[in-house]
Amino acid sequence: MKNIRPTALMVALVAALACFSAPCLAAGDTLPSWRDGAARQAIVGFVDKVTNQGGPGYVPQAERIAVFDNDGTLWAEQPMYFQFFFSLGRLKEMAPRHPEWKNDPAVQAALSGDLAKLAKMGEKGILGLVGLTHAGLTGEDMQAMAAAWLKTARHPQKKLLFIQMVYQPMLELLAYLREHGFKTFIVSGGGVDFIRAFSPGTYGIPTDQVIGSSLKAKFTNKDGKPAVVKLPKINSIDDKDGKPLNIDLHIGRRPIMAVGNSDGDLAMLQWTAAGAGPRMMMLVHHDDAAREFAYDRKSHVGRLDQALDQARRDGWTVVSMKNDFARVFPSDQK
Amino acid sequence: MKNIRPTALMVALVAALACFSAPCLAAGDTLPSWRDGAARQAIVGFVDKVTNQGGPGYVPQAERIAVFDNDGTLWAEQPMYFQFFFSLGRLKEMAPRHPEWKNDPAVQAALSGDLAKLAKMGEKGILGLVGLTHAGLTGEDMQAMAAAWLKTARHPQKKLLFIQMVYQPMLELLAYLREHGFKTFIVSGGGVDFIRAFSPGTYGIPTDQVIGSSLKAKFTNKDGKPAVVKLPKINSIDDKDGKPLNIDLHIGRRPIMAVGNSDGDLAMLQWTAAGAGPRMMMLVHHDDAAREFAYDRKSHVGRLDQALDQARRDGWTVVSMKNDFARVFPSDQK
Repeated sequence: MKNIRPTALMVALVAALACFSAPCLAAGDTLPSWRDGAARQAIVGFVDKVTNQGGPGYVPQAERIAVFDNDGTLWAEQPMYFQFFFSLGRLKEMAPRHPEWKNDPAVQAALSGDLAKLAKMGEKGILGLVGLTHAGLTGEDMQAMAAAWLKTARHPQKKLLFIQMVYQPMLELLAYLREHGFKTFIVSGGGVDFIRAFSPGTYGIPTDQVIGSSLKAKFTNKDGKPAVVKLPKINSIDDKDGKPLNIDLHIGRRPIMAVGNSDGDLAMLQWTAAGAGPRMMMLVHHDDAAREFAYDRKSHVGRLDQALDQARRDGWTVVSMKNDFARVFPSDQK
Repeated sequence: MKNIRPTALMVALVAALACFSAPCLAAGDTLPSWRDGAARQAIVGFVDKVTNQGGPGYVPQAERIAVFDNDGTLWAEQPMYFQFFFSLGRLKEMAPRHPEWKNDPAVQAALSGDLAKLAKMGEKGILGLVGLTHAGLTGEDMQAMAAAWLKTARHPQKKLLFIQMVYQPMLELLAYLREHGFKTFIVSGGGVDFIRAFSPGTYGIPTDQVIGSSLKAKFTNKDGKPAVVKLPKINSIDDKDGKPLNIDLHIGRRPIMAVGNSDGDLAMLQWTAAGAGPRMMMLVHHDDAAREFAYDRKSHVGRLDQALDQARRDGWTVVSMKNDFARVFPSDQK
């Protein structure tokens, strides 16, 4: 911390508190899994500027809102959004009792492993599967099932648990921002209850700071008790334009920092960029085939094309996973 | 604070921090504007129980979610929800340019001051007016307009500023809960951007912890910049069943404490009551004609009928404003 200013006590208290309720990920060194370079310097410079009380870029704590995409930004997303593998398990289990699914193209693409075809249907395709496999359940049920699945489910290629495929530098970035008075949010195209199952423990982000795609629901009696039960209908697709719309609905303030990795995050980044005062827009660029995956303009998931062009044109921060990350996953050697 | 236990340091830190960002309302005495009685004892007993680490009713901090209705629960709502008076100003201003409003029954009821008729249309009627008067604006615009209005607008009978008609005991309750690790949320039938204009400064509740009725919106270009602009269409009515549905969507956890004052809060209270572990359900009963207003089963707004019956049947806490509040508004003598 370079800028010890009148807010130092407050920052220290915030940091102390953050360690009570969430994994204390960056206690000593600042951003230890980030290599020194333009991206790390941009982050530290931005945080210094907005927390420098009396300085020209100072932003009051209540306005320090940072939003993060999840798939491909906080954890991996290849060869398909991890939630897909979760839904696929339930789909296989339930399919024998649902002959009508024979006519559902998303179900058939999923069961036959045609990920490219499924990806073409977008978040809507995946969320449709979530609706089929989770209708009648409560959010509590869904979170419990996802949490149980995450304890043992492994990535088909990397053989790590899916939950181990979070990006260590991003965990450190989240903690670093919170230590400096930021409120961190997830704004994901993925299903909100799936992410809420692990967000508090893994990212230190409480369930109410997770915005995602959602199903409609109804308030009803279940097993003799009042319950909120999911319906097999989509409420909101939190992707593309849906991201700024849902940020406006849920947070009610424009973020000063937005981090994503694909064209699905472009609207959120553009809206963030258009606000007054200091702004930080960041894209995670998947260019590390050895340690993770390398993909951008032509990928079937996490396609990064227009957003990459705008980032380069407007001077947004593009993080090279290959060059900027000293390690990718928590289990990697530094 | 009776229970100094291993969490004392944490509680002290939380309390110290709360004073940085929000009005520090109950620094010394506990709940000073509450008279000693069953309601105050129930609150203190509940908070002692859920914060008593190692005790049978202990609730981890992340699960200490408390939800509050706004109109009639945190501030007054007679002779009509205060947001109505805000919308009425704009309605009168805009009406000459909108001859088509002659056929809109909600507009006509509003302009003619027929509050009973307007109330019969429910939250939907009021929100329709908000849609008419605020379409094309951003959330930022709406919050700025509401904040400006609240600086000078006065209650037609009490002559106080509307913003002075918050309930002092409830401000103290909100602060007391936060000092004990609760996260406090507003879950209101009122328009979300209207409440967000004053919630951080008045209640110490940040905009992202305000859930309310909302309009649909679109992501578009406004004055050459990306913007989220409201449409004259209702997105969600956050009343009755809408309250548990929106809590599930926005918070993703069932609250352990719910506070309301009308049948519009019943579903939220029932859902809260049906969860496992310690629960607190509370109704503010308007029985003080001298200091505020007296109304319940037959009121045109804030009707309290079925919820009062269930509260008495199930032993929920019913707060008598006359007996339990030492003072009602911050400007009252104690």
